Amino acid sequence: MSLQSRRPQTVKVRDVAREAGVAVGTVSRVLNDHPTVTRELRERVERAMADLGYEVDVTAQSMRAGRSRLVACAIRDFDIPRFALFIKEAEAVLREAGYTLLLASTTNRPDVEISLLRAFRRRRVDGVMMTLSDEEHRDVRQALSEAPMPVLLIDRDCVGALDRVTADHRQGARLATGHLLGLGHRRIAMLVGDTKAFPSRSRLEGFREAHAAAGIAPDSRLVRDNVLSSEDAYRATASLMGGTNTPTALFVAAMDMLGGCLRALRTMGLAVGDRLSVVAGSDSDLAELHTPPITSIEWDLAAMGRHAAIMLLERMRGDEIERGRGLTVPTELIIRGSSRPPAN
Amino acid sequence: MSLQSRRPQTVKVRDVAREAGVAVGTVSRVLNDHPTVTRELRERVERAMADLGYEVDVTAQSMRAGRSRLVACAIRDFDIPRFALFIKEAEAVLREAGYTLLLASTTNRPDVEISLLRAFRRRRVDGVMMTLSDEEHRDVRQALSEAPMPVLLIDRDCVGALDRVTADHRQGARLATGHLLGLGHRRIAMLVGDTKAFPSRSRLEGFREAHAAAGIAPDSRLVRDNVLSSEDAYRATASLMGGTNTPTALFVAAMDMLGGCLRALRTMGLAVGDRLSVVAGSDSDLAELHTPPITSIEWDLAAMGRHAAIMLLERMRGDEIERGRGLTVPTELIIRGSSRPPAN
Repeated sequence: MSLQSRRPQTVKVRDVAREAGVAVGTVSRVLNDHPTVTRELRERVERAMADLGYEVDVTAQSMRAGRSRLVACAIRDFDIPRFALFIKEAEAVLREAGYTLLLASTTNRPDVEISLLRAFRRRRVDGVMMTLSDEEHRDVRQALSEAPMPVLLIDRDCVGALDRVTADHRQGARLATGHLLGLGHRRIAMLVGDTKAFPSRSRLEGFREAHAAAGIAPDSRLVRDNVLSSEDAYRATASLMGGTNTPTALFVAAMDMLGGCLRALRTMGLAVGDRLSVVAGSDSDLAELHTPPITSIEWDLAAMGRHAAIMLLERMRGDEIERGRGLTVPTELIIRGSSRPPAN
Repeated sequence: MSLQSRRPQTVKVRDVAREAGVAVGTVSRVLNDHPTVTRELRERVERAMADLGYEVDVTAQSMRAGRSRLVACAIRDFDIPRFALFIKEAEAVLREAGYTLLLASTTNRPDVEISLLRAFRRRRVDGVMMTLSDEEHRDVRQALSEAPMPVLLIDRDCVGALDRVTADHRQGARLATGHLLGLGHRRIAMLVGDTKAFPSRSRLEGFREAHAAAGIAPDSRLVRDNVLSSEDAYRATASLMGGTNTPTALFVAAMDMLGGCLRALRTMGLAVGDRLSVVAGSDSDLAELHTPPITSIEWDLAAMGRHAAIMLLERMRGDEIERGRGLTVPTELIIRGSSRPPAN
């Protein structure tokens, strides 16, 4: 490959040093973000680099300094529009701090998570924020414990030594379930995702706690887990509503699964609101603009992204901070027309 | 930084060579993807590396080989759920070929596009696929012409020497407008995005062509451009429907802008279908599950992602292929209940 030869780079470090009126070693220290460099000195050198058109060779630089100025964010998939709020905010904070955010999808598979961690390590990524498909997976935990760079978990818990940013899904599910119980529903069905991971596990807890608080036993046959795609939500809804002993309320707790559920109800000729109340586990244009509008749980994903980036930056700077910090953003319930008292 | 020292790497290239029964230079050639390495030899060396737990130092390797095995994809934002289909498919093809896909957002700003191109170059990214905020922007065109790696444009045209993958938005807009004209509409409003970029420019052309084919002059006051956010769509809809001389049909041609438009109509107490027909420029759960369901334009974003990855891989291999290849996927119109003959 001739990439190298096609990259003109006639400006040398010594030219920058001369232009800035400093020693070559000072330019080096600036390039390597050495802590002893004053702000004034840094700015003088950076101005000289800009004036001369000096281009930092990041690859060569990371060979020397052992760092890449890359932060990686690995999530299951990029098809959840609200998650873009997390990415946008995290990227803004990281860019401000001089880092490029690299995104990758885990496709919710432990082997991909492990191989991404390996790839990040090889590329000397400075920090990682990620979700996990299964917090108890032994090989994933091993890979996390061996990672040479800080890893922050997104909406995951249970790997004690790692920082994490979570939403209070238990609270959200407790609010949603309590709201439905308060309206008089006794047969509440629930669709959740992978209960090996924090969000669905927490939602199940909240669901049970709300029932316990009302002195009512939930019917476990009305709880469907592993709802991870629109097709899963369609099938689970069709199976719940097609059987005997159907629920009077449906809590679609898994994120972004409302579409599949509503598609099944439409196919079956079941209107939302009259015979069946529906509550969505995350807000969306679809929930807000549906007829009737869908009662939804909401939380601040932009704040999660901001906190994730700030906490990871602190950890990457190696500040003397305790291990395993956790930050939780609250959830709230937006009550709309899709949740009503049960018919009869 | 002590990342380097924390990375145990006692297995050397010479150990791999001994294990595989080959010369050290052969291992080197495998690591650098040298074209003379046979498949059998490659597999033997890779097996030895796996057995010994040899970890390729990609940074060091890319220093030597001048390549990083990274492909970057830069798009405006990650909040368009259907675009995840493009990314997912492109990533699968690239992963299969041994590349890691790095994603970044341009926030639709030329300066960010230029600085990302610079960052990709510094990191020796092997290939780039990206959108552009303004195909005519002089500095962006300059940066593209200086890029040392192949760049493929996503849904952009006009930069002649670059490969591109586009959707036939002109055809989609022609179908949608022709459908509304055929129903009897004569006052058709249109919301488009940034007309400096290919998709909106093409949609405008299709809109005008359909009018010309029907021998009808479109009212240019009913065309609103620069609709780039949900809030823009809300305001444009409110302004169109709040004035005198309101349209009988609204073609929300910009991608993913239906939510803002429907929110404005709801606020104004205007029902879709009766007094106002609506056609969406891209399909979504919201369009499909709205009451009434919204007539929409649709195209195969997964196929676009697949073709983009394949064309970029070909270019990166340096195959002897002509410059500036273009591939266009067709668009179709899904007719639903939101488009009806005008009242009276």
